[in-house]
Amino acid sequence: MNSTSPTFLVLDLAGTFAFALNGAWTAMRVARLDIVGVVTLGMMTALGGGFIRDTILDALPPATFSDWRYLAVAAAGALVAFVSGQFADKLATPILVLDALGLSLFAVSGALKGVGFQVGVAQAVILGVITAVGGGSLRDVLIRQIPAVLTSGLYAIPAVVGALVVVAGTQMGVAALPSAIVGAALCFAIRMAGVHFGVNAPGPIGRGRANADP
Amino acid sequence: MNSTSPTFLVLDLAGTFAFALNGAWTAMRVARLDIVGVVTLGMMTALGGGFIRDTILDALPPATFSDWRYLAVAAAGALVAFVSGQFADKLATPILVLDALGLSLFAVSGALKGVGFQVGVAQAVILGVITAVGGGSLRDVLIRQIPAVLTSGLYAIPAVVGALVVVAGTQMGVAALPSAIVGAALCFAIRMAGVHFGVNAPGPIGRGRANADP
Amino acid sequence: MNSTSPTFLVLDLAGTFAFALNGAWTAMRVARLDIVGVVTLGMMTALGGGFIRDTILDALPPATFSDWRYLAVAAAGALVAFVSGQFADKLATPILVLDALGLSLFAVSGALKGVGFQVGVAQAVILGVITAVGGGSLRDVLIRQIPAVLTSGLYAIPAVVGALVVVAGTQMGVAALPSAIVGAALCFAIRMAGVHFGVNAPGPIGRGRANADP
Repeated sequence: MNSTSPTFLVLDLAGTFAFALNGAWTAMRVARLDIVGVVTLGMMTALGGGFIRDTILDALPPATFSDWRYLAVAAAGALVAFVSGQFADKLATPILVLDALGLSLFAVSGALKGVGFQVGVAQAVILGVITAVGGGSLRDVLIRQIPAVLTSGLYAIPAVVGALVVVAGTQMGVAALPSAIVGAALCFAIRMAGVHFGVNAPGPIGRGRANADP
Repeated sequence: MNSTSPTFLVLDLAGTFAFALNGAWTAMRVARLDIVGVVTLGMMTALGGGFIRDTILDALPPATFSDWRYLAVAAAGALVAFVSGQFADKLATPILVLDALGLSLFAVSGALKGVGFQVGVAQAVILGVITAVGGGSLRDVLIRQIPAVLTSGLYAIPAVVGALVVVAGTQMGVAALPSAIVGAALCFAIRMAGVHFGVNAPGPIGRGRANADP
Repeated sequence: MNSTSPTFLVLDLAGTFAFALNGAWTAMRVARLDIVGVVTLGMMTALGGGFIRDTILDALPPATFSDWRYLAVAAAGALVAFVSGQFADKLATPILVLDALGLSLFAVSGALKGVGFQVGVAQAVILGVITAVGGGSLRDVLIRQIPAVLTSGLYAIPAVVGALVVVAGTQMGVAALPSAIVGAALCFAIRMAGVHFGVNAPGPIGRGRANADP
């Protein structure tokens, strides 16, 4: 598995597009920013996770900067979000779905890139999770929200599952594409189930429920 | 154009000084920090943009760390700000002017460094913008404000213009110094005009005005 | 002094454990997160400073990622904190003590690593301070607090003292272990004295007291 393979690139660019839309729409719902703010937040959400991933892997300059396709896809996603601004009041569900989609695609592509760089098994899983939650966490910090990875129990866990499937698949010699599809689908399903049923991971013993999903 | 050329160094150190003063005075106005807090925020504002720039370029260790002149200029700027603390109530305008100055100088120096590292044309412009807005965004996140690049339409745009002038100049064979002066002056003028007239980029369609400059 | 020497490793792993406990308990006190949020914040607090340090040193991938011992120690500290959650109401003092301990150990280990990479004397001290305050600052930003390094005067100063002792010791040919012990003990004592007596560095002239320790 090579980080320039078509499978990796399609997953990574699809995740970039999903997070660009998500970040830009979040900007319009939460902070009512102008076009520059909307596009900036969209691009940071889309490109932030890959930037952290590539810094950790010492794969600098990061692909999200040096490869024009990432910049173009992120900008396109943010602009599409901006021009559909009049629908912003109906965007709560699309924002959640796109966030789950970006999470799933980046968990899988981040883990694949880690495998390609021959980091350890645990490290590849962690790298998938960091890629998946990095951009959204940056988005949340910039608009002064506590990142979803901290408040929503079923946010990191599906990313762990998705990355784990891919890493296990690679270890067992399964081709990248099928294990990536299974991993991403599983991650997406768990995340959406968590959102739908308001499920959380266990809270501290004797301290009642943790924060529900916002 | 070489990133150790005198032109680059003067622009970059002048921007460092402007942001150190700006960050330190911001700390004193907004959060009333003590000398350590003031100097720390001043230095982070001054050195943060260059740190992100050099990480992206894989020019590590970052010049803002390994070159003592950056550390000395940033510390000096922050200390000058601290000892002039009794004037803090009159500092709203100087803070804005210094922010615009740092933005202009770093947009230009960041783009020049990108050109020196032979990144693509779009990448050099983006690198200028990241350098210009990076330190101030770090400052704003640390004191719990939404970064100006998100809320103020005419913050990223002048940085894009300044970086674009420098990159276009280099492409056309113009010497670094004149195009840097024109780019920085244009960036500064647009930013100050935006502040003065309260101009913003267009907001989302049908959603009313975006946030005004704070 | 080599960054894989036993002295360095013990200091660095002990600091990692202290910050993992501290970050996880902070999560439970301040934000009442569930197990994933608690472990995530604990690991970010524990591993964040070393990640920034190793990025600056161009020692990528960071040891906090590529060396499984850091991941294991950070995860263990966070899990220990989680299962002791029912004591969270009595944790204010342990949290402060662990924070001071992590600060002291990382100030010393960060400076030692800088010396090992043959950065300048001032740079080694700054690197110690960045390692010491980096993880805690990340923790504070993620839970929407102004980082202690900005609001608490006697937070950066003890880290400077601890790092300075180690760097001076190395310059004078003292072995790493004794100067590390003296540096860390001094840093810890100054920090705890500052907490106990509510001491702060001087505030801006004519502007009254800076924020007290939170």
